[in-house]
Amino acid sequence: MSDLEIARNAAVRPIEEISDAAGIPREAVEFHGRFKAKIDPRLLSADGGTPGSVVLVSAMSPTPAGEGKSTCTVGLADSLARAGQRVMIALREPSLGPVLGMKGGATGGGYSQVLPMDEINLHFTGDFHAITAANNALAALIDNHIHQGNALGVDPRRITFKRVLDVNDRALREVVIGLGGPTEGTPRQDGFDITVASEVMAVFCLAQDLDDLRERLGDITFGSTYDRTPLTVRDLGVEGALTLLLRDAIKPNLVQTIAGTPALVHGGPFANIAHGCNSVIATRTARQLADIVVTEAGFGADLGAEKFLDIKARAADFAPGAVVIVATIRALKMHGGIAKTELAAPDVEAVARGTENLLRHVRNIEKFGLSPVVAVNQFGTDAQEELDWVLEWCRSEGIEAAVADVWGQGGGGPGGDELAAKVLAALDRPVDFAHLYPLELPVEDKIRTIAREIYGADGVEFSALALRRLAEIRANGWDNLPVCIAKTQYSFSDDPTLLGAPTGFTLHVRELIPKTGAGFIVVKTGAVMTMPGLPKEPAALQMDVDADGNAVGLF
Amino acid sequence: MSDLEIARNAAVRPIEEISDAAGIPREAVEFHGRFKAKIDPRLLSADGGTPGSVVLVSAMSPTPAGEGKSTCTVGLADSLARAGQRVMIALREPSLGPVLGMKGGATGGGYSQVLPMDEINLHFTGDFHAITAANNALAALIDNHIHQGNALGVDPRRITFKRVLDVNDRALREVVIGLGGPTEGTPRQDGFDITVASEVMAVFCLAQDLDDLRERLGDITFGSTYDRTPLTVRDLGVEGALTLLLRDAIKPNLVQTIAGTPALVHGGPFANIAHGCNSVIATRTARQLADIVVTEAGFGADLGAEKFLDIKARAADFAPGAVVIVATIRALKMHGGIAKTELAAPDVEAVARGTENLLRHVRNIEKFGLSPVVAVNQFGTDAQEELDWVLEWCRSEGIEAAVADVWGQGGGGPGGDELAAKVLAALDRPVDFAHLYPLELPVEDKIRTIAREIYGADGVEFSALALRRLAEIRANGWDNLPVCIAKTQYSFSDDPTLLGAPTGFTLHVRELIPKTGAGFIVVKTGAVMTMPGLPKEPAALQMDVDADGNAVGLF
Repeated sequence: MSDLEIARNAAVRPIEEISDAAGIPREAVEFHGRFKAKIDPRLLSADGGTPGSVVLVSAMSPTPAGEGKSTCTVGLADSLARAGQRVMIALREPSLGPVLGMKGGATGGGYSQVLPMDEINLHFTGDFHAITAANNALAALIDNHIHQGNALGVDPRRITFKRVLDVNDRALREVVIGLGGPTEGTPRQDGFDITVASEVMAVFCLAQDLDDLRERLGDITFGSTYDRTPLTVRDLGVEGALTLLLRDAIKPNLVQTIAGTPALVHGGPFANIAHGCNSVIATRTARQLADIVVTEAGFGADLGAEKFLDIKARAADFAPGAVVIVATIRALKMHGGIAKTELAAPDVEAVARGTENLLRHVRNIEKFGLSPVVAVNQFGTDAQEELDWVLEWCRSEGIEAAVADVWGQGGGGPGGDELAAKVLAALDRPVDFAHLYPLELPVEDKIRTIAREIYGADGVEFSALALRRLAEIRANGWDNLPVCIAKTQYSFSDDPTLLGAPTGFTLHVRELIPKTGAGFIVVKTGAVMTMPGLPKEPAALQMDVDADGNAVGLF
Repeated sequence: MSDLEIARNAAVRPIEEISDAAGIPREAVEFHGRFKAKIDPRLLSADGGTPGSVVLVSAMSPTPAGEGKSTCTVGLADSLARAGQRVMIALREPSLGPVLGMKGGATGGGYSQVLPMDEINLHFTGDFHAITAANNALAALIDNHIHQGNALGVDPRRITFKRVLDVNDRALREVVIGLGGPTEGTPRQDGFDITVASEVMAVFCLAQDLDDLRERLGDITFGSTYDRTPLTVRDLGVEGALTLLLRDAIKPNLVQTIAGTPALVHGGPFANIAHGCNSVIATRTARQLADIVVTEAGFGADLGAEKFLDIKARAADFAPGAVVIVATIRALKMHGGIAKTELAAPDVEAVARGTENLLRHVRNIEKFGLSPVVAVNQFGTDAQEELDWVLEWCRSEGIEAAVADVWGQGGGGPGGDELAAKVLAALDRPVDFAHLYPLELPVEDKIRTIAREIYGADGVEFSALALRRLAEIRANGWDNLPVCIAKTQYSFSDDPTLLGAPTGFTLHVRELIPKTGAGFIVVKTGAVMTMPGLPKEPAALQMDVDADGNAVGLF
C-alpha cells in the first residue's frame, strides 16, 4: 500500500480526543475541520511545571536512497508513547512546491505518519499562505514606497528582500519587474524564492510570541539607501501589518499520528537558507504539554543539527536532552561507494566503508556535550547480516544504537521499542550541553569553527564578495549574530560528490547574507537553490480527487 | 465607532448555533475556529423542497461617495429575518490586496456587517490562497513544460495565462521572467494579476460541483501553439491536480451577521474582468437551506446585475425573484453634478438631476422581466426633504422604493423593515425572467445588444485587435459564449467622467479575451485594471495587533 492508502485506511480520531488526552483546555483549541486544530499557547495554563525534554532527530548525510527521518521521528514518538511516556511530536509543515514536484509529502511514511496526510501536505491550516501573503505584501510596500516618491532613498539596485511563492517555479528565479512606464513602478532586477526560503518564514519559526514576532519583522533588512545605510521594515513602518497577517498562523497546529500520538506541525524553514526546524512556539508549547518532545532538523546532522543546536536552541534557550542520528543500510552503502541501482545486493563491506560518514556525525554531536543514539531505520531490502554488522560496529565504537522497524510497524507494533528504550536511557544521563561557538566570535571565525569542527575542512576560502560582506557585517554591528551555513546536504564538504567523510578540502564561501530579523548570517557555499524547479514529469500529473472527494496521487 | 469597533463589540455566537438554526446537519459543518465553518454541500439532505428565492442587490452607478451595497445586502437580510423569514445571505469574500491598500474591508458597515470582520477581511478560510496556489502551480507547470522539451509546441510569446497574487502590486504588472540562462527557464514577457481577476477564480465561482470544476479547469485556454492552435489545461493533463488544490476551498463558508443571520461568504471574482458575484455553489447551498437568499453583484447594475442575469443565472439555471437597486442621496447628487466635497448641503435639484442615472438602471432591469425595488441607503447627512423627494419621484415613476437605515440600526432595529416589506411584496409578484440575449447571437452582436440596451450607446467601435480576436473566436468555435464586459463602473459609457445617463456615445472595444474555462468572453473597453497599485499612504501603515491579539486599523 502507498503512504496515502495507509493514511486513508488509518482510524483517525476527532482532534478533540487528541487535545483532551494531551491536557489541552478546550478554550485553547481552534478547530480546522475535524482532524486539525490550532492551539493558542496564551490560553494554556502556565502551571510552572518542568518543561518536557527535547529529543532531536537528525541523520547521517542524506543520499538519494532516502533516510526516513520524519518516519523515525513519528515512529520513535509512538514507541515512547507505547512505553507509557507523555510524549508530543514537533515537526515542520510540508511545502506545497515540492509536493507538486517530486519530493512527495513530508508527513512520515508507512505506519509512522501524521494524519490527515493529504490535508497536511496540501494547504494544511494556511500558515504558509499567510507567510507568503505577508512576505509579498512587504515586497509590494517596498516597491510602492519607491514609486510614491522614495522618501527613504531606497536604492532599487540594492533591495535584497524577494517575493516568494510556495511553488517550484524556476522561471521566476531571475526576473525584471516594474516594466511598462512611469505608472507601473520602477524597473529593477529581482527574483522569487520559494516561501520556505524566506526570512519571514525564518522569523516566524524563531519568534517567541507576537511581540517578538513584531520585533523581528521590524528588524528585517530589506535593502539600503544609495549611501549604503541598511534599511529595515521598521523604517517602512509596516511591521504591525505583517504581524496582523501572521496573527493566527503563529498558533501551532495539532494533528495526530496513526497511533494517536499528538503532533504539533508548525512552520517550515528551508534547511539550506534557513535553520530548518519547526517553530520555537510549537516546540515550547509541546514542552509545556508533554514530558518528552520529539523533533527533527532538516538534512544531515552537519546542517540541521548544528543549526538546531547553535541557532534554535540558543534563541529558545534550552538544552536538548538527547539526539538521535538516523542511518540506513542503503545510505551507508551509498557512502561506501555503491550506486543507487546496486543497493539490493547485501554488501557488508560497503556498509562498513560507509560508517565513516555516520561516525563523523556521531563525533560531531558529542562536541556539543551530547551522546547521540543511532537509529538504523530498517528497510525491507536490508539483509540481517548488514543490520547485525552495524549494531556490532556501533558497540565497538561505544555508540548506543538500535534497529527501528517503524515504517512497517508504526506505534502499534514493537518495531521501535528498543530505540525508545535507548532514548529513554539517554534522557536519564546527564547532559553537559554547550554551543559550538560563542556569539562574540567574529562571523569569519564562526564559519572557520564550523568548517573545521563539523565539516572536517582544512580551511575556508572567502570570495572577494564574501570578504566585502564580512566588512559590511562588521561595520553594521552584526558580527555577533550566529551563522546559518547553506551547503550541499550530500557531503560534509561543499562538493556533493564527496561522500563518506572527506578530508583535505577547503570550504568555499561565495556570499554572506545578513538576516537581521531572523537573527543570523546566511553563509552561501557552492550553489544554493532558493527556488526549486519542477521535474520533467511532475507529481502533479498523477494527482486528482476521486468521486468521494479523496485525494489521489499524493506520495 | 469604526466598523471594526462595532464588529468587536458585537455579541458573536458560536458558529454551531448559527448552523444548527439554519438546519445544517453537524456532519456537514467543518469548523474553522469558533466563528467560521465550511459547509460540505454533499452532506446536506437533498429533501427535494423548492429552492429559496434569490434577491439580487445591485446599485446605481457608484461614485466616490460610496453606496453601501454590502451594507444594504446584510441589512435587508437581517430585516427579512426580523420579519420572520428563513433567510440566508450569499456574499463574495474580500480580497486582501485592497484591504491592505485603501478600499478597506468588504463585509458591510455599521450595524449591518458579517462577523468576524477582521478574519473575513484577512485570510478567512484560505480560499483565495488556495486559488492563488492553484493558479500559480498551473503557471509553473506551463513554463516547466516549455523548459522540459515543449512537447506540445507552446508558443512562449502567446501564453495568455498569468500568475496572480492577492496583493496590490503595480511593479508586477509588466515583468520579464525566465532570465538567467538555459537552466532558468525560457525568457518571456509576462505579468501578474490580482487573484480575484484570475480565470481560476471565475471558474471556481461558476462551477456546480467538483466534477464541473475539473471540467472547467481543463477547459481553460492558456495559450497556443506556434501555428495558433489553442492549448488548454487538459492538454497539459493537470486539471486533476488543480481540482485537488481546490477540493476544500470549494466548500462555502458560513458566518453570521451582527444580528445572527446566517451568511455564506464564498468566492470573489472581480466585477470588471469577471462576473463579480459569489460562487454558484454558495448560492445553490443557500437556496437549499433558506426560503430567501439575499446576494449582491459588483459595481452598478449595468455591470454586476447584467452579468449576474446573463452569466451566473444562466450557468446556474435559475431566475431571480427580485432585484434591489441601492441608491444614496450622495450618489444622486454626484450624478447631478455636485462635487464630492460639496455633498453636505441639501440640494433637491441636484438629487433630481441625478435620478436619470437611477432611472436608467431601473428600466434596464425591467428589460429582464424584473421589477426592481429601489433602496435608498440612508446616511446621517441626508436631509429629510431630499429623502422625501426621492420617494415621491419613485412613486411618480411607478417604482417601488424605501428608505433603509441599516448602517445605523442593522437587523436589531426597524430601519430596514419597509425595504423588507417591499422586497417580500416583489417576491410575491410573478416574474417573467428572460436573459437579455440568446447564446446563439454572435459575440459581436451580444456586445452591441448590451451596449444599446443597457449602456444606452449609439454604437460599438471595435479596434483592429478586437476584430482579429472576433475572427479567432469564430474560428475556434467560441461564438456561443456569453460576454463579460469590462468597463468603468462610474459611467454607463466607457468614459468615467460621463455621469448621469449619457447618450450619443460610442462604446470602444479594445480587446477580447476568451475565458473558455469560465465560459465567457471578456470584452475590454477603456483601461481595465487587473492588478491594482497601493496608494501613497497604504492602509497597512495603520494595521497592527494589540496586546490582547485583536486587530487594529482595519476599516
